Amino acid sequence: MSEGGAEGAGVTPAAEFPALGPEEVAALRQIGNRWREARREPSGHTDELPLDPTLGRYRRRPAPRPFGRLAPIEMFRPGEPDELVATEPANLPGSRPGRAVTRFRRAVLGPPLTSAAVLYERMRKLVALPVLSSDLLSSVAYGPEAMLTVLLLAGGAALELSLPLAALLVLLMVAVGLSYRQTIPAYPHGAGSYLVAGDNLGAGAGLTAAAGLMIDYVLTVAVSVAAGVRAVTSALPGLTGLTLPLGVLVIVVLLAGNLRGVRTAGNLFVLPTYAFIVALLAVLAVGFLQAAGRGFVALPPPDVPAAEGLGLLLVLRAFSSGAVSMTGIEAVSNAVPAFRPPEWRNARTTLSWMVAMLVLLFAGIVVLIHLDGVVPSPGETLLSQLARTSFPTGPWYVLVQVATALILLLAANTAFNDFPRLLFFMARAGHAPRRFLHMGDRLAFSNGLVALSVTAALVFVVFRGHTESLIPLYAVGVFLAFTLSQAGMVVHWRRRRGARWQRRLALNAVGATLSGLVLLTAAVAKFAEGAWVVVVAVPLLVLLFHRVQRHYRQLDRALALRPPGTAPASPGLPRGTAGDGEPADGAAPQPPAGGLFAGSNGDGAPLSAEGQEVPQQIRHLVVVPVARLNRASLRALAYAASLGQPTLAVHLAPNEEEADRFRGQWEAWGDHLRLETIVSPYRAVIGPLAHYLEALHASGADLVLTVIVPEVVLRHRWHRLLHSQVERRLRRALRALPAAVVTSVPVHLSE
Amino acid sequence: MSEGGAEGAGVTPAAEFPALGPEEVAALRQIGNRWREARREPSGHTDELPLDPTLGRYRRRPAPRPFGRLAPIEMFRPGEPDELVATEPANLPGSRPGRAVTRFRRAVLGPPLTSAAVLYERMRKLVALPVLSSDLLSSVAYGPEAMLTVLLLAGGAALELSLPLAALLVLLMVAVGLSYRQTIPAYPHGAGSYLVAGDNLGAGAGLTAAAGLMIDYVLTVAVSVAAGVRAVTSALPGLTGLTLPLGVLVIVVLLAGNLRGVRTAGNLFVLPTYAFIVALLAVLAVGFLQAAGRGFVALPPPDVPAAEGLGLLLVLRAFSSGAVSMTGIEAVSNAVPAFRPPEWRNARTTLSWMVAMLVLLFAGIVVLIHLDGVVPSPGETLLSQLARTSFPTGPWYVLVQVATALILLLAANTAFNDFPRLLFFMARAGHAPRRFLHMGDRLAFSNGLVALSVTAALVFVVFRGHTESLIPLYAVGVFLAFTLSQAGMVVHWRRRRGARWQRRLALNAVGATLSGLVLLTAAVAKFAEGAWVVVVAVPLLVLLFHRVQRHYRQLDRALALRPPGTAPASPGLPRGTAGDGEPADGAAPQPPAGGLFAGSNGDGAPLSAEGQEVPQQIRHLVVVPVARLNRASLRALAYAASLGQPTLAVHLAPNEEEADRFRGQWEAWGDHLRLETIVSPYRAVIGPLAHYLEALHASGADLVLTVIVPEVVLRHRWHRLLHSQVERRLRRALRALPAAVVTSVPVHLSE
Repeated sequence: MSEGGAEGAGVTPAAEFPALGPEEVAALRQIGNRWREARREPSGHTDELPLDPTLGRYRRRPAPRPFGRLAPIEMFRPGEPDELVATEPANLPGSRPGRAVTRFRRAVLGPPLTSAAVLYERMRKLVALPVLSSDLLSSVAYGPEAMLTVLLLAGGAALELSLPLAALLVLLMVAVGLSYRQTIPAYPHGAGSYLVAGDNLGAGAGLTAAAGLMIDYVLTVAVSVAAGVRAVTSALPGLTGLTLPLGVLVIVVLLAGNLRGVRTAGNLFVLPTYAFIVALLAVLAVGFLQAAGRGFVALPPPDVPAAEGLGLLLVLRAFSSGAVSMTGIEAVSNAVPAFRPPEWRNARTTLSWMVAMLVLLFAGIVVLIHLDGVVPSPGETLLSQLARTSFPTGPWYVLVQVATALILLLAANTAFNDFPRLLFFMARAGHAPRRFLHMGDRLAFSNGLVALSVTAALVFVVFRGHTESLIPLYAVGVFLAFTLSQAGMVVHWRRRRGARWQRRLALNAVGATLSGLVLLTAAVAKFAEGAWVVVVAVPLLVLLFHRVQRHYRQLDRALALRPPGTAPASPGLPRGTAGDGEPADGAAPQPPAGGLFAGSNGDGAPLSAEGQEVPQQIRHLVVVPVARLNRASLRALAYAASLGQPTLAVHLAPNEEEADRFRGQWEAWGDHLRLETIVSPYRAVIGPLAHYLEALHASGADLVLTVIVPEVVLRHRWHRLLHSQVERRLRRALRALPAAVVTSVPVHLSE
Repeated sequence: MSEGGAEGAGVTPAAEFPALGPEEVAALRQIGNRWREARREPSGHTDELPLDPTLGRYRRRPAPRPFGRLAPIEMFRPGEPDELVATEPANLPGSRPGRAVTRFRRAVLGPPLTSAAVLYERMRKLVALPVLSSDLLSSVAYGPEAMLTVLLLAGGAALELSLPLAALLVLLMVAVGLSYRQTIPAYPHGAGSYLVAGDNLGAGAGLTAAAGLMIDYVLTVAVSVAAGVRAVTSALPGLTGLTLPLGVLVIVVLLAGNLRGVRTAGNLFVLPTYAFIVALLAVLAVGFLQAAGRGFVALPPPDVPAAEGLGLLLVLRAFSSGAVSMTGIEAVSNAVPAFRPPEWRNARTTLSWMVAMLVLLFAGIVVLIHLDGVVPSPGETLLSQLARTSFPTGPWYVLVQVATALILLLAANTAFNDFPRLLFFMARAGHAPRRFLHMGDRLAFSNGLVALSVTAALVFVVFRGHTESLIPLYAVGVFLAFTLSQAGMVVHWRRRRGARWQRRLALNAVGATLSGLVLLTAAVAKFAEGAWVVVVAVPLLVLLFHRVQRHYRQLDRALALRPPGTAPASPGLPRGTAGDGEPADGAAPQPPAGGLFAGSNGDGAPLSAEGQEVPQQIRHLVVVPVARLNRASLRALAYAASLGQPTLAVHLAPNEEEADRFRGQWEAWGDHLRLETIVSPYRAVIGPLAHYLEALHASGADLVLTVIVPEVVLRHRWHRLLHSQVERRLRRALRALPAAVVTSVPVHLSE
């Protein structure tokens, strides 16, 4: 299950910084011209800075010492003119616990990697086969068993049905394989279901496929880890009680490995995948030789009493359980660009090999199970039973189990590669939070990896690590993505035509129809057993993706640059009164567009933001709320006065006496700033202050209010309980007021 | 249990605003002179404001409409010159949910009250008796039962011991009563244990008494509510299953009533208290008449098998359980100033009546229990059994139960009066968070009330509303406060002497000794049953009070006004370079006192804060981090440029290409501000930015950095998940940097 592999080159750290469109650049020029017009004096801004103009001076001075070392650390080195390049120490967080966490993380995950280290490698077919097939081939470790487990519910006799069902599944595998063979040349840049469905069936279908895939990836991890742990506990039954901690440990190790950024190096995958193929072929060969020795007479299975009647529903359930053996079949079509040229031909050949191998292993396992007369048992996997029958003694049995556990680990790892990439592509289209665009300091999509691990671990624990309980959820998501992807191809051929398009369309149509039938079967037959979770989750996820996209779209539209004057009227910073430096006393003051906090709550209407202004239009009023006169408030007053803008101090008093006393102190200080006293007879602070500020705003609608509050920086977190945090509450109360800026002047307590 | 009643006049809303000391005012004058010296031009600040100088204009304009009504609401009315008075609507919060909550609260709790509405009333003795005795007298509803429940563990025969134990307790009551009689004239302004112990034995003893009292108040609520609910369920056994919800409901109602600010009006207390006394006397009278009819022959109690041996420990446990009948005996001595003059004499007389009534009721109940041969039973209180025996039919039984439940409610209410007052006095001394100084809009100490209710409800629920489980915790706190208060009086007499001081000292010494013995008994005998909780909690609380006080003391010392020049060297805003307006380019730059984030972590050393500065000394550098050019960042740039201070824009790029692209956009805009580009090859944002700002700070140690960040105000809370909140993280990273001010310019999305 690999997604979006096609756009490999698209996975860049720069995706977080989308470029401006040409109209935006044009608007930018016009805005800049207005700044220039309004600004009378020449720009010449560099001279104004109270700094060495090259800003290079501090590079020669001892830099801050985050580790308390005395040696200067060069945090920055000069780049091009007016450019600095942050070196690795500049990434260290400042706080002591933060640094300890970072040091631990680096010890585990390795030092940070620069953006230039992103690698794109091309694969030979013999390397591509194991890399891309681990997910697909590992499915035979649990697929046949899942099918037989359902059949066994109708008693041992029902196991006879496994052969015809397996034949049907082989047919399905071949049909879907042929269908995907058509997709590869059509999407040589990669054909993730999200892309193909979205491209041909519309964004909704793309998002539905994405939702199916996301669930699929989570379940791939949970199911593969569950099956892998079971392969181990089949060999070592003593570990059965540790299933849950073992599984979570495996997920944590996978997370750590992927956060470290283990490249999907071919070598790592080649050995376990080929080992698994060889081991399984050996089991089958020995098994069939043994069977040949007794003239291919099937041993009778143990007599298991029927728990349910052998109805159609049961057969359908067994069929859709067996169908999970096909998960991962789409991996090649997603990863076409990773092949050596000619990419599409090499990819198509590899796909054919993979499907052939799948059919061989799947069919062989089902037939051998039938011949050996083994049945699913809670304590041991069927594969383990077959291996024991073929290799009753010696190290071979253990090797089979080790290879099985390893390939399942690789299959889970596939999801760790693909899930964050899918989220990356979704985030780039605005369908997922933008933080999934961010590559961590090891160039891994840390946020996506953590999201996958946490979800998969939760699912694993909630289902107590039982493969059989997870299978019903699994098939729905997988076949949803299959169906949408292949249906998308049908539309694609109808639109694009091209050589032999009817034949291609027909093959995709067969694939889509069969996948759709499996999807329906799985959703209906297993609805009560768990498939309902997926049936409910997919639309909810699609809705969520839509809401996320709508938010980003509205935000981007509201914040996009527009030529001056074209923005809708906004209650924000004033506009169109450039050069009008004196108070608009005579003019009828315009009331603000809404009362304080009257923030609009409607949904769905296009948003606009306050516009970009020319600095000279902004008229300031600096307001300093002062509760009492101490070093903190005098520091805030000094800061406010030093800005050189009109400044007003405000004092809230609980009664007249206190107000008079405070005014006396103010005069003792020298009455350097205008003071307004507000008596708050109900003892509230935030409410009257916020309403007063809104009244100020209303009295001069074109004013920008800068509210300056001292903020005592406390050394211990629990000390916060001892303070009323006026600054934070005021900030919250003023959030909705247009053009009210809250500035907190830090006051540090130092020894 | 009333505390701190003496300082009734001290409970004022203005306590939140302590006055400046004379040295502070002197320092203020000197600081003001320096402002004047530095400021060359005349002050004349009122002209500068871009507002109508009287600021009265907006009073005539339609004010903001928090309810969407069209009628103008006058939020403020003019007071003295330069003074406004907030009217009641100005207290309304701004947000829609906030207003809904406020409207609901006002519907339940009533409209806000101005500070002038604080009332102080004086009580007649006949009113004082019920008001102050509800806690004490209600204790007989559970005290005798608690004692007998312990005795019964040793079998029915052990109940014989109840009579001698009761005699001992009566002796104790008289001794403690006599002891408190001595306290009243010595502390005519009120003698709370916190005050008396702190005054005579040192702050530690005062805090220990306070810790004991706080636990005591919490348990008073929990025990009284538990006993009251049990009085109800004794009469209506069907309600037994609802004990927990009923109890929590009662606590909520008490909280609401006290938040509403129910005055402790005599009338409310007179009826239930006297009704309880009359009802209990009637039960006793009828019971004794019945007993007289059979010649005062005690009926044999039912034969209960012994669960434990009758050892000394059991007897001590029974004794200390019975001692909880004395809780509340100190109420009068705390409330002396509330009496009519001559206060101390009236108070002392009332105390004598109360103790006499307590002895009568307590002794009568114990003897009647013995005569009637009733034993504690899980389903019904002893008092209920006695009432049923005396009044087998008719409404009288129900009346007794109602009176019992009501007086227990009043007893719980006493704690609601006293706990917040204790916290107020502690907060005024700096031992408790200052928010406990704040009176809510109904003039109630809302924070203290909520703290008490939550704690008491938790205790009630944890102990499943069982009176018997709570009693072991109860005695320790009560007798800790008794012992410390009376021991304090012993020291008081030794120091002050005065008329007949030896006799007074002796009486207090006896009281202290006996209380101390009960304290020891309770702590040791009931240690395993729950007293250990209190034994552990008291020192922890005292430690907490100490830590709180140390924090406030350090803070106040650090923030206190000092004459300029006397403050210790601090890395904060520059000092001592007044008038030096040009960059200190030639001067050797002083490194900051600590690296970024190098905030000192030592404990206990005296703190200092950055000093109050003269505005003209402050050299500004405004820094605007810009991620991309859009309306939000241009708004921040315009705001920054409009301040008229040197301004520098900073862009963080993940690689060179993006840096070049951004510089191109910057030039298209017109290059109006100096731009510094930082390439962050490891893709981190906050770390390099914070380190860069520290490097700027290091390069000009006397600079004040104002970092201006646009902050998009989101309409839905969940949208925050979609944003990386750089502003918040930057604020946190820069907290420790001296003289780095973070300003966020709000950008609103409006339709």
